[in-house]
Amino acid sequence: MGLFITLEGPDGSGKTTTMRLLEEKMKQSGIDFIKTREPGGSPISEKVREIVLGIGNEEMDPRTEALLIAGARRQHVVEKIRPALQAGKTVLCDRFIDSSLAYQGAGRGIGIEEVLNINLFAVGETLPDITFYLDVDAATGLERIAASRGREINRLDKEDISFHDKVQKGYKEIMAMFPSRFKRIDANRTPDEITDEILKLILERLS
Amino acid sequence: MGLFITLEGPDGSGKTTTMRLLEEKMKQSGIDFIKTREPGGSPISEKVREIVLGIGNEEMDPRTEALLIAGARRQHVVEKIRPALQAGKTVLCDRFIDSSLAYQGAGRGIGIEEVLNINLFAVGETLPDITFYLDVDAATGLERIAASRGREINRLDKEDISFHDKVQKGYKEIMAMFPSRFKRIDANRTPDEITDEILKLILERLS
Repeated sequence: MGLFITLEGPDGSGKTTTMRLLEEKMKQSGIDFIKTREPGGSPISEKVREIVLGIGNEEMDPRTEALLIAGARRQHVVEKIRPALQAGKTVLCDRFIDSSLAYQGAGRGIGIEEVLNINLFAVGETLPDITFYLDVDAATGLERIAASRGREINRLDKEDISFHDKVQKGYKEIMAMFPSRFKRIDANRTPDEITDEILKLILERLS
Repeated sequence: MGLFITLEGPDGSGKTTTMRLLEEKMKQSGIDFIKTREPGGSPISEKVREIVLGIGNEEMDPRTEALLIAGARRQHVVEKIRPALQAGKTVLCDRFIDSSLAYQGAGRGIGIEEVLNINLFAVGETLPDITFYLDVDAATGLERIAASRGREINRLDKEDISFHDKVQKGYKEIMAMFPSRFKRIDANRTPDEITDEILKLILERLS
């Protein structure tokens, strides 16, 4: 079985940049891997993603969203992640089960345990071997969110800040639930420093 | 709160005819009700229904199907069923949670308890007050399936018959789990006899 790696972090943690740079460095290191993302990653999953993210579906209840994302995840696992792992490949996945726990469970207030239960129904035994959590200071995270949205922190509304805060606290709880799977990565550094550390940890696990 | 009624039964139980005739008789009796169906019943739910039933999605895993249907059900409950019940209306729903338990839990072999768990996440406290189960003899059920598909019973393949059998046995288990909610209706009779009995039971509950 290949190694199943997921990358997690709140908005503003630099996950997109990290993902891109890590992919390059993994290629240069000759690792046999596939990169994929959540939600989505298979044709059925992409259709579900369209509904979840689609314009005109604003009435969506948080539990509906959690169930649809878990459904898309199931299909992603069955069609893409498991076959790659069974072929001995490393799988690098941008967000997975923990994003649902943090965003829907903690952020939207459904509850981490409840969202975990439906996700365990979805993924079965296919849990990540390592999850890198990009840990960013609250202030730095907010600055990066503001920059990416082209506005100042003091113009982010209270809802943005309160949601961000709930997601960050949720991730801390989830890390405490799965201490052996999570690796905390200090994401207050440069993208090169961050990805060098992650790559080193991946190469150690593969050796 | 209004009365929440669901109608359940395996293929071949005459559910479609019963539903249509029951609706007419409920109107004639002056009952203030809405009729709805599963899966679907709200704009988001209908989009999910398209994916579940859609051509080209044949690769769908049974657990994906169960999660998507539970997601559509959640939205159906939040947008349509709960508001109607809160307005004091009777709700008549063609299939609900028990269809998932029988078809996905028992028929597809995921397990009734597992499918129940994700559906309780979806519906919360909104469970039916009465569920009419159209109980049909195995032989009569198979004859009706054959007739509706325009072929003879001995040309139904083994998979059809085995699946039908699992669904029927599943319904029996589910009835045993929720004895106070279920009303067994002998569906080996004429549509008029069946709907007269159901209407009588509804009127008793409403009086």
